[in-house]
Amino acid sequence: MKKVEFFMLLLCLIGASFLVSADPPTCPADLDGKCSDSDDWQGDFFPEIPNIKYEGPSTKNPLAYRWYNAEEEILGKKMKDWFRFSVAFWHTFRGTGGDPFGAATKYWPWEDGTNSVSMAKRRMRANFEFLKKLGVDWWCFHDRDIAPDGSTLEESNKNLDEVIELAKELQKGSKIRPLWGTAQLFLHPRYMHGGATSSEVGVYAYAAAQVKKAMEVTHYLGGENYVFWGGREGYQTLLNTDMGKELDHLARFFEAAVAYKKKIGFKGTLLIEPKPQEPTKHQYDWDAATAANFLRKYGLVNEFKLNIECNHATLSGHTCHHELETARLNGLLGNIDANTGDAQTGWDTDQFLTDVGEATMVMMSVIKNGGIAPGGFNFDAKLRRESTDVEDLFIAHISGMDTMARGLRNAVKILEEGSLNELVRKRYASWDSELGKQIEEGKADFEYLEKKAKEFGEPKVSSAKQELAEMIFKSAM
Amino acid sequence: MKKVEFFMLLLCLIGASFLVSADPPTCPADLDGKCSDSDDWQGDFFPEIPNIKYEGPSTKNPLAYRWYNAEEEILGKKMKDWFRFSVAFWHTFRGTGGDPFGAATKYWPWEDGTNSVSMAKRRMRANFEFLKKLGVDWWCFHDRDIAPDGSTLEESNKNLDEVIELAKELQKGSKIRPLWGTAQLFLHPRYMHGGATSSEVGVYAYAAAQVKKAMEVTHYLGGENYVFWGGREGYQTLLNTDMGKELDHLARFFEAAVAYKKKIGFKGTLLIEPKPQEPTKHQYDWDAATAANFLRKYGLVNEFKLNIECNHATLSGHTCHHELETARLNGLLGNIDANTGDAQTGWDTDQFLTDVGEATMVMMSVIKNGGIAPGGFNFDAKLRRESTDVEDLFIAHISGMDTMARGLRNAVKILEEGSLNELVRKRYASWDSELGKQIEEGKADFEYLEKKAKEFGEPKVSSAKQELAEMIFKSAM
Amino acid sequence: MKKVEFFMLLLCLIGASFLVSADPPTCPADLDGKCSDSDDWQGDFFPEIPNIKYEGPSTKNPLAYRWYNAEEEILGKKMKDWFRFSVAFWHTFRGTGGDPFGAATKYWPWEDGTNSVSMAKRRMRANFEFLKKLGVDWWCFHDRDIAPDGSTLEESNKNLDEVIELAKELQKGSKIRPLWGTAQLFLHPRYMHGGATSSEVGVYAYAAAQVKKAMEVTHYLGGENYVFWGGREGYQTLLNTDMGKELDHLARFFEAAVAYKKKIGFKGTLLIEPKPQEPTKHQYDWDAATAANFLRKYGLVNEFKLNIECNHATLSGHTCHHELETARLNGLLGNIDANTGDAQTGWDTDQFLTDVGEATMVMMSVIKNGGIAPGGFNFDAKLRRESTDVEDLFIAHISGMDTMARGLRNAVKILEEGSLNELVRKRYASWDSELGKQIEEGKADFEYLEKKAKEFGEPKVSSAKQELAEMIFKSAM
Amino acid sequence: MKKVEFFMLLLCLIGASFLVSADPPTCPADLDGKCSDSDDWQGDFFPEIPNIKYEGPSTKNPLAYRWYNAEEEILGKKMKDWFRFSVAFWHTFRGTGGDPFGAATKYWPWEDGTNSVSMAKRRMRANFEFLKKLGVDWWCFHDRDIAPDGSTLEESNKNLDEVIELAKELQKGSKIRPLWGTAQLFLHPRYMHGGATSSEVGVYAYAAAQVKKAMEVTHYLGGENYVFWGGREGYQTLLNTDMGKELDHLARFFEAAVAYKKKIGFKGTLLIEPKPQEPTKHQYDWDAATAANFLRKYGLVNEFKLNIECNHATLSGHTCHHELETARLNGLLGNIDANTGDAQTGWDTDQFLTDVGEATMVMMSVIKNGGIAPGGFNFDAKLRRESTDVEDLFIAHISGMDTMARGLRNAVKILEEGSLNELVRKRYASWDSELGKQIEEGKADFEYLEKKAKEFGEPKVSSAKQELAEMIFKSAM
Repeated sequence: MKKVEFFMLLLCLIGASFLVSADPPTCPADLDGKCSDSDDWQGDFFPEIPNIKYEGPSTKNPLAYRWYNAEEEILGKKMKDWFRFSVAFWHTFRGTGGDPFGAATKYWPWEDGTNSVSMAKRRMRANFEFLKKLGVDWWCFHDRDIAPDGSTLEESNKNLDEVIELAKELQKGSKIRPLWGTAQLFLHPRYMHGGATSSEVGVYAYAAAQVKKAMEVTHYLGGENYVFWGGREGYQTLLNTDMGKELDHLARFFEAAVAYKKKIGFKGTLLIEPKPQEPTKHQYDWDAATAANFLRKYGLVNEFKLNIECNHATLSGHTCHHELETARLNGLLGNIDANTGDAQTGWDTDQFLTDVGEATMVMMSVIKNGGIAPGGFNFDAKLRRESTDVEDLFIAHISGMDTMARGLRNAVKILEEGSLNELVRKRYASWDSELGKQIEEGKADFEYLEKKAKEFGEPKVSSAKQELAEMIFKSAM
Repeated sequence: MKKVEFFMLLLCLIGASFLVSADPPTCPADLDGKCSDSDDWQGDFFPEIPNIKYEGPSTKNPLAYRWYNAEEEILGKKMKDWFRFSVAFWHTFRGTGGDPFGAATKYWPWEDGTNSVSMAKRRMRANFEFLKKLGVDWWCFHDRDIAPDGSTLEESNKNLDEVIELAKELQKGSKIRPLWGTAQLFLHPRYMHGGATSSEVGVYAYAAAQVKKAMEVTHYLGGENYVFWGGREGYQTLLNTDMGKELDHLARFFEAAVAYKKKIGFKGTLLIEPKPQEPTKHQYDWDAATAANFLRKYGLVNEFKLNIECNHATLSGHTCHHELETARLNGLLGNIDANTGDAQTGWDTDQFLTDVGEATMVMMSVIKNGGIAPGGFNFDAKLRRESTDVEDLFIAHISGMDTMARGLRNAVKILEEGSLNELVRKRYASWDSELGKQIEEGKADFEYLEKKAKEFGEPKVSSAKQELAEMIFKSAM
Repeated sequence: MKKVEFFMLLLCLIGASFLVSADPPTCPADLDGKCSDSDDWQGDFFPEIPNIKYEGPSTKNPLAYRWYNAEEEILGKKMKDWFRFSVAFWHTFRGTGGDPFGAATKYWPWEDGTNSVSMAKRRMRANFEFLKKLGVDWWCFHDRDIAPDGSTLEESNKNLDEVIELAKELQKGSKIRPLWGTAQLFLHPRYMHGGATSSEVGVYAYAAAQVKKAMEVTHYLGGENYVFWGGREGYQTLLNTDMGKELDHLARFFEAAVAYKKKIGFKGTLLIEPKPQEPTKHQYDWDAATAANFLRKYGLVNEFKLNIECNHATLSGHTCHHELETARLNGLLGNIDANTGDAQTGWDTDQFLTDVGEATMVMMSVIKNGGIAPGGFNFDAKLRRESTDVEDLFIAHISGMDTMARGLRNAVKILEEGSLNELVRKRYASWDSELGKQIEEGKADFEYLEKKAKEFGEPKVSSAKQELAEMIFKSAM
Repeated sequence: MKKVEFFMLLLCLIGASFLVSADPPTCPADLDGKCSDSDDWQGDFFPEIPNIKYEGPSTKNPLAYRWYNAEEEILGKKMKDWFRFSVAFWHTFRGTGGDPFGAATKYWPWEDGTNSVSMAKRRMRANFEFLKKLGVDWWCFHDRDIAPDGSTLEESNKNLDEVIELAKELQKGSKIRPLWGTAQLFLHPRYMHGGATSSEVGVYAYAAAQVKKAMEVTHYLGGENYVFWGGREGYQTLLNTDMGKELDHLARFFEAAVAYKKKIGFKGTLLIEPKPQEPTKHQYDWDAATAANFLRKYGLVNEFKLNIECNHATLSGHTCHHELETARLNGLLGNIDANTGDAQTGWDTDQFLTDVGEATMVMMSVIKNGGIAPGGFNFDAKLRRESTDVEDLFIAHISGMDTMARGLRNAVKILEEGSLNELVRKRYASWDSELGKQIEEGKADFEYLEKKAKEFGEPKVSSAKQELAEMIFKSAM
């Protein structure tokens, strides 16, 4: 296959939302930050959509916030600072609605049917207009989603640079920055056996080159974190896999990333995003504990944190709350991919989270963690395939932000009301004893404990009060 | 509640297989090792069951081995030494057939309907007769299953001592030893919130005293390992749980166990048995990687190994093969609980493994590990509730042993035939290059790798040949 | 085994919450309906618990209703008539806290440690006091849970009669009636292969005799429905099962039940309760559609309805809402077992439902169904094993009732607000066309449709607006 | 969007395996049936691949059958007649290796990078060469996979006709016929809400037109069955769905299909293929019992049979064996999609079945059914994404056919050995009694049964012998 053909193939496959509009909207020569402050600003991409504002719970307007009030202070911090919401470029601007049985369904009016650099730039402008209308200051990106893959690494880098340059310019005068960037190491066939864990050494090198560049541009744009998404780092069957070798390679790769981060002076956090499976049968960063074990085994535990995604949590058999707490207790809670799955399906649906109870538990963890900065909440979430109106993009994000905002409000209510914490305190009250302290300080050996056990006789065991805990929890929402 | 009543309550609940036979068989005054060598030995408990012998694959006799031939050498080691099969006392002699919706179904003829020490001793004799007829040299036990729980710790210990003394005597003149012992910290209501992770400090002390004693008796009987089964070390809801505190307590507990092991001169391996859930919603030793992370975090990774159970593996979303390999690659593969689950049900069914493919993969790991000693294969497996004939106990064990034996034979066949290993070798051949070595030695930084990637151009990526690997694998069985 | 011994064995196994209190409370000679109307009524079993009253959402009292206000009218019907809440005798009064790994944990003060008829009667009095304090008019029972199993069918029937006579007397002067009764065909070992689908014909006959009696006593007490719980009607493996024969037997059994119902003049509804598995690997009444197919195949579809349990719905891979709608659309929605499962565990946890969103969807179905009478909402739900205070029994029921009440309030709010219905109406608006009508009336054959398709050209397809639907739905709660 | 652009878009999306080979192999002017009989026939598409022959279990040749011996007689029927194996055109010739996270990986040498009619015809020639080399007489197709979708229905039909004409010609002189055809109603965005159950009436009409044409061409080619794959007939959320209306529409659609089948004189079986979910959250033909209930409810049960797919069976929580038996007992077993899923992943992996135990159980059902004709075994199975060699296509099919052949051989061995059947016969022996007959004939009412139960006393209940059944089963393979 010739290079040019391969490039065209990628055009077809990656974007898959083109050749669509015969008459694209006129693309403005410049789009600066100022206009977004004006209420009557229409913008070039979403002229029908107003700036989204807080209107409170009683509004019937789907294009308004009911619970998210960016500037409102909660527990001494503005709501926007608790969340640091981020829009995921790939889902919002490159999501086509394709699924394993279906072609693209989404034909956004700003698409011109090409995967050209100029189209990439127009899309980036749309992104900034979207962020501003939504009132969100962060965005996240994959390198190959914001700029077209070229037929060579050099060409891909050049494409990326051109789009990054525009993003840099669009950021000017605004607070908008990348929450994080990443290298997309899973779409292209070269990565079919993984990137850092590929059976082919040439692919490892290619992946390293791609991550190097992605780290550079994230740094250049003022990104606050850099994410490693396991993508295809895993296996389909152990029969043809040398898992030990692959894990060693992955560790070498991460070591090189740490070294390069330091070399270029990037101060952001490096994040690993656990996911149990899909597309591979088994991903090496299965869940928070698995990722933590890997980092400890290879001496990398102080160099990385975790990006916990709620949908990945449930796919691995845990609640999102559990994964957040596991990360937190291991000192590794770095960022949250705020989405959710479907409780009855076995794949990653990446839905916007709408369950207020789950959001409340998430925020209970975040409050315990003292906030999430320099991480934030990235909406790694996509419209359903059948949601094809431009306004659906806004509705979905508003719904997700409002759900998280309700979660924060509820978590604070529970905290301030106090009876749930009191219930937990009471449950463990026996540990405040002399013996409790001795044990916690490592001073109680088995012989001493046996002596104590014999003195005590049958220990008292109290009700766990789970139904009461649930009643308190649910009554707060 | 008075003590005596509580004791009666425990009688009812723990055993649940009593008051059964009005006319128990006469219990022999002594049962020594000699008689088992005689073909016409009938024994006192299983008079209808012959000594189980190898008859080869063509036999129609359900009370014979088709594939397990204890003394046959495979890869320079006798089959019995590859496996070190062990009978689990609790399932085989205390399994009642009860389930969440049903009462006991199993009324073995040697039971007299009491949970007395004398009944416990008779049961222990049955265990030894069973081991001898089956031709198995190891057994595993829970403290409270081999001897009745008393109304005080002292009384429980006394009961245990009496039964242990008999076991010691029965072991004499035979090679029979415990593969491992453990303390059962889950049945009694005092452990409803866990043992080492209980919210009640008194329960922690009680658990320590019980483990101390169980370690002592395991050591006394010449046991080669000691297992910690997480039982109820976990949570039902995070709403009422201080997970950080509980995990710290668990670490303190393990540290004390390590210290005590050294103090009493026990040389066996300490083993943690991962399990994701059931009875708790979440167990702290979820899977091999989670347990490894815990051990690393608390500096215990050199003091413990893992006891991998196949049914627990599948409950946690992994294959058994995956869990074994994860343990092995972390240097933690210590013992195997050879059982399996049901692929369509969501709870621990603890079936005897009958899938030859799965057994083959298990044995591929064990061969890579150079064997499993001082661990072995414990049949943590139970008869189905509806299997109520005494011979069913033998049939189930024979079937499990034969399955594992086929697995070993197949694994060796695959190894010796060579084409599967060759397929894997070829898949990673590019790593034998200069660049491969540089990477593996940590000498390839991102800049060097980028340079190489640019030199190489688009890397070659070969077929993973998964269908061929599966064809080779399946053709060997 | 002698009969008396077997009886003692059952004593131990069935109840498992006895021998507990050395000093049981004095059991009152009579407990009539009057006292419950008085605010200062203490009762004999729950002296610390007041009559539970509606106090509104702002109360902090765990022993009060926040959302359930029995007499309040909603959509022209009192709340209590929408729900017809029922307490499940077995969970509330016979639940011991036992699980597959643990003994009983619940020692209620009114238990005297026996499984005698007199204890059964005292328990029945406690049931009526519980119902009155909770303000609930219905209860559900299994025959063997309200009265001790005897050593013969005759003795069991006699025990049952004695307890039923008391229940009849306690019902007098009150509105309390059984919502439904059932025969418990799963605990006793005789039912290990099933009841109506047992491989033993004698067990089929025994099951028939037991159901006959249970139908009689349900009728005698004025019960409004009779339930068949599949229990062990299913299989563990197809290898030893003749599924066709077993299903035919089940049909014969149901036919005989219908005939007997008519003979004794019982006007209540016969209900089948779908459940996919547990304790068996596969239950024949897997889900609503499976049960409907069975009923249609054997010509029984007009004689039965379904009792949908939410936890069973999720175990079978569906939402509760789906199962309710499936039952409703098949004309088979008869009763609801209001509980829920744990989204991360694979067994029946029978928790009280606390998810307001799920409760809202349940109530949307019930409103569409025009209510659920003569069925109701039975709390087939149990305290967690670790919840051991008497007040926990009340808290759990209050929490469950309040959750359902919020669901009703939310469902009505959504209905009255109208925009969700409007969204659905719009989605299907094209079916209001001439062609839509022709199709629905069966008048559009393929040739005509092809002609139309060619006339139309590419059809218009609108956004499904799922995110908007979810926003509207969630904003109502 | 202009028509021509939309057509190009579809080109990109549907096939996604193009622009690949700069130098496609010369396409032969004619390829008739004769050459395949010659051993030295190379063919035009697979010149490196010989005709696949039976070489027996000891061969090391991956391109030979070990167990499948087409002409060998088993139980009075040739192996090829037991199976009637079919190659699925879509997986084998249109499978690109794309997955939700990855682009196409498969670049077959005969592809020229277009989705033109001429490419479709070349692919059809490859299909026939593949069938002949494999020695398989049946193939299955989706209309839109064998011929390119046009910009109008008329154009699509014209494209289809051209390809069908070639297929007809290629069939000449050979025994090759379609096992079944179907209309692909899921890929195109117009079907995003379903086909027959779409919320848009125009889509219903379009779907009808497409099915009409697909039935016609299946009939024209001598196809023996016609399949309805539920595709997107289901819902994503009940919140925006009128399930009752959609199910009614589906019934109307099937009624029209039945009428049209009769009108054109198509004698083949109409088949519904149950699948629980994916791509929709819930498919209306969830499992065999659900589909059966639908057919019964709408009076269609005599007009349809079921096409059972093993991977769909496990996704719905059943074994494949269970679904086959459920279909058989409902008189609905029509065809088998011989594939399998991954026991640890929650989506449709459509792997070639390699589990001999599962294959044996499948064949036990087929033998009980007296064979499967006019249905057969269609390999609705695909190469893994990472399997990219042309020979992998052969290896996968050979492995799948050999697995089924082993299954048949084992099933016959078990049947002829007899002890498993004997075990089952004994288990139900009590039903051969007088009482058993009375019950089965509907002559035993509850009063009679109660009388019998009292006469019998406690019924005898025997061991289910599940472990013995498993031992017998496994020993045969």
